[in-house]
Amino acid sequence: MTIELNTDLVPSGPYHDVVVLIDVLRTCTVAPLLFDVGVEELALTPSLRRARAEGGAGRLLVGERQGLPPEGFNHGNSPVQLADLDLRGRSVVMVSENAPRWLDQLAGSRAVLLGSLFNAAAVADAIATLSPRRVDLVCSGFAGEPDLDDAVAAAFIAHLVQERAPEAALVGAARFATTLARALPDPLDALWRSTAGQYLRAIGLEQDIAFAARVSASSSVPRLVRIEPGEPAPLYHFAAVG
Amino acid sequence: MTIELNTDLVPSGPYHDVVVLIDVLRTCTVAPLLFDVGVEELALTPSLRRARAEGGAGRLLVGERQGLPPEGFNHGNSPVQLADLDLRGRSVVMVSENAPRWLDQLAGSRAVLLGSLFNAAAVADAIATLSPRRVDLVCSGFAGEPDLDDAVAAAFIAHLVQERAPEAALVGAARFATTLARALPDPLDALWRSTAGQYLRAIGLEQDIAFAARVSASSSVPRLVRIEPGEPAPLYHFAAVG
Repeated sequence: MTIELNTDLVPSGPYHDVVVLIDVLRTCTVAPLLFDVGVEELALTPSLRRARAEGGAGRLLVGERQGLPPEGFNHGNSPVQLADLDLRGRSVVMVSENAPRWLDQLAGSRAVLLGSLFNAAAVADAIATLSPRRVDLVCSGFAGEPDLDDAVAAAFIAHLVQERAPEAALVGAARFATTLARALPDPLDALWRSTAGQYLRAIGLEQDIAFAARVSASSSVPRLVRIEPGEPAPLYHFAAVG
Repeated sequence: MTIELNTDLVPSGPYHDVVVLIDVLRTCTVAPLLFDVGVEELALTPSLRRARAEGGAGRLLVGERQGLPPEGFNHGNSPVQLADLDLRGRSVVMVSENAPRWLDQLAGSRAVLLGSLFNAAAVADAIATLSPRRVDLVCSGFAGEPDLDDAVAAAFIAHLVQERAPEAALVGAARFATTLARALPDPLDALWRSTAGQYLRAIGLEQDIAFAARVSASSSVPRLVRIEPGEPAPLYHFAAVG
């Protein structure tokens, strides 16, 4: 069966089958990393207030404002800093402004995975396991616009999906992303030049860019398992597959 | 007054004010070139049949199939070959498959210009003359998908518009195009790597890529002046401004 392998440079759902939400800098790099360092339960939310209300009882709060953990938070969003922690068995609520705001739009799909360069091969394996008819690689972008980091990651993942399913047909912006990735063959270079990368450089987080450029270093794939409503924003619960 | 300076990586009208249709390889490079070499009247159409029906009476037919002029046509679409002609006072009908099919969608706008790297500065001047509130730089793309050549040209034109109107605000994919152009600072490199460029290389027209990478070498800006209905496709008439 032919797989349609679509890329959207910014979300433009609805989507129906298997969706990979891509946010390389940094949410979809940090999310698999948290599972790598032992986290058992991960929830994302765009709201600091919702996260604070869910803290306590051993739940860790991860998030940032201007590059620093807000009051009451245990850690910032820097993968470089999170990578050295031992969070075995812990439950984490992570605040992220960009990626979670797309999750409502994606939630009607059969499966929603979080993907990046960091877990690219694991995402391709997870996709293969799901035997989809269509895969939508959905870039989060930056401030509602396309960005290089996510587009290049989409191309990497698309390439790995095609290795596993050579009959997969590239549709939408998938070819453009591939052309782009060929023009910028060093992922670190693409991330460095992206708008998100420029922002991280401006706040002194260059090392996070280098971390996020490590292709397929993680074997964890966060999958959306449940949306817990609430004010001012839902909690989006993820479990690790792969 | 603030100008909104939008870029669409593929057409997604409707548009209302000043629109620049961009198709670097090759229609929007060839169209200004034809005015440069003296053409007085230029009409575009996607239909070989319509073009043939309009030939004769001194009207030249320009077009290609698989890189060669079809029977009854005077010239192909290669700017390298057209650049050496003296077409003073001539009337030309040019067949192009990609750019013209977007013109119906654009035609409701106040002004529709054809732009590329080749006439980038002239396009920016023409935009300034029109005093728009909003400028849409609309990339034709390749087979309905974004492509590098048009995206990079949009960034060049946006930059030149901002030089003339520093208060112009980048919206839509304009920032992404700028990021892309910074990542691929040599326009020839961007065109070479684009899908359209790959196609031209495959049919032996590498020299056309080099020609299209000549930034602001033309001072002609084709502007849509009239749509002449007819079967199987309209004629889109252009006059030179600038």
